[in-house]
Amino acid sequence: MKHIVITAGGTVEKIDEVRQITNTSTGKLARLICKEVLDYLGDEDFTVHYIMSKRAVKPEVVQSKVMIYPVSDTQSVIDAIDKVYSQYKVDYFVHSMAVSDFTTNYTAPVKLLAKEIFSLIESCPIENVEKRIQEILTSPHSASLKGSKISSKEDIVLGLRRTPKVISHIKSRDPETFLVGFKLLNGVSEERLIEVADKLAIDNHCDLVLANDMCNIDSQKHEAILLKDGCIVERFNTKDEIAKGIVMRMLGENK
Amino acid sequence: MKHIVITAGGTVEKIDEVRQITNTSTGKLARLICKEVLDYLGDEDFTVHYIMSKRAVKPEVVQSKVMIYPVSDTQSVIDAIDKVYSQYKVDYFVHSMAVSDFTTNYTAPVKLLAKEIFSLIESCPIENVEKRIQEILTSPHSASLKGSKISSKEDIVLGLRRTPKVISHIKSRDPETFLVGFKLLNGVSEERLIEVADKLAIDNHCDLVLANDMCNIDSQKHEAILLKDGCIVERFNTKDEIAKGIVMRMLGENK
Repeated sequence: MKHIVITAGGTVEKIDEVRQITNTSTGKLARLICKEVLDYLGDEDFTVHYIMSKRAVKPEVVQSKVMIYPVSDTQSVIDAIDKVYSQYKVDYFVHSMAVSDFTTNYTAPVKLLAKEIFSLIESCPIENVEKRIQEILTSPHSASLKGSKISSKEDIVLGLRRTPKVISHIKSRDPETFLVGFKLLNGVSEERLIEVADKLAIDNHCDLVLANDMCNIDSQKHEAILLKDGCIVERFNTKDEIAKGIVMRMLGENK
Repeated sequence: MKHIVITAGGTVEKIDEVRQITNTSTGKLARLICKEVLDYLGDEDFTVHYIMSKRAVKPEVVQSKVMIYPVSDTQSVIDAIDKVYSQYKVDYFVHSMAVSDFTTNYTAPVKLLAKEIFSLIESCPIENVEKRIQEILTSPHSASLKGSKISSKEDIVLGLRRTPKVISHIKSRDPETFLVGFKLLNGVSEERLIEVADKLAIDNHCDLVLANDMCNIDSQKHEAILLKDGCIVERFNTKDEIAKGIVMRMLGENK
């Protein structure tokens, strides 16, 4: 029995109880990839484990073939992946979800934060000041209390810390999983796009990487290149082509 | 002919080309209010101008009665309101949209920002340092270039500045518009909720204010109180009740 994991949509990181950091991902491409997998494998014995953010478009579901795992923030994606790996031998992993690189560390009013930094200048030996400023900007005492709704009366600063990288987690769970990574950049040359996407592939042991640029995506077209070992193996112009191309190459080469 | 404006959903403020600040608003209550207006006014001569964020749930639309104005960030909401007011005499305005209090001012890597603040200490007379730190935290030279996608290699600081208040804009366009405001707080006493909601009403000349607390809202219930001149005129337990109550009181009292 084959197990295929697809991640879909964009993560949501809370700022407070009502505000959040999200991204523009809709989950449309992941839905198409799911459909292609269902079409390609047909009556074979397989399960698609579909890890999706709540606001992503829902996939067409064949009841016995697709299991849905709703997620919200980055940590919940990692938890969902761990849950799948703890129960199944995952053969293929298409990580098309847009995972937030950052999560909220703190929020602080600009004025209070400035006062806090200023107050250290008199109390701290000069050789330590820059390091202490960094520490304050990373974890200020003037941070608003967690869980409270932020006051809208003053300009604020939002400290963001990096989230754990989901993609690096996958092959560490099972080096034999066939992994498809995604790299989205904005307004770069194709040369640069390939360079960055290939680094992603090497760092995280991706078997394929789909590389694309915001500038070449609109409601009509979705240009992208598929990379294997740093070389372009296919070019696409639409989401449909991308979904077909990834699934054909992934399942076709490794059946 | 009556003109009714309803705002729905939550605004989206860009952080960069892919990241954004949103809120948890879904637009469900606004959709119900729109439906109640359609039911209440029936065959009368009226138009609902429905200003909605793209991700809000879509209202049931009676073609000749409802005009949709899609919006994204706070400024686009103000622009849409100005567009309606420049063409129509607005009789009723239900401002149920969750408008972001903040928009992105800058993003900056923590390390660079710390260095920038440190460097001013030696160059600036001590009596001006705190004010200069505030200025840097409001508008740093180390800010990332606008339009570029943020690097995920370092922890960053996001500077947020307050957006113009949409609700205060409405009566300044036409003091005769009947205005329904909304106040959502989190985990406060009813006394405090009334106090804050009444301040909103007074500051912005609301004729009614719907006040509610995150803690009393879940998938089953939506507790809320309707305030007029600082007094509770009605209590609700569900979104349906809220929508009916607002529309009955607004259109009933002022026909």
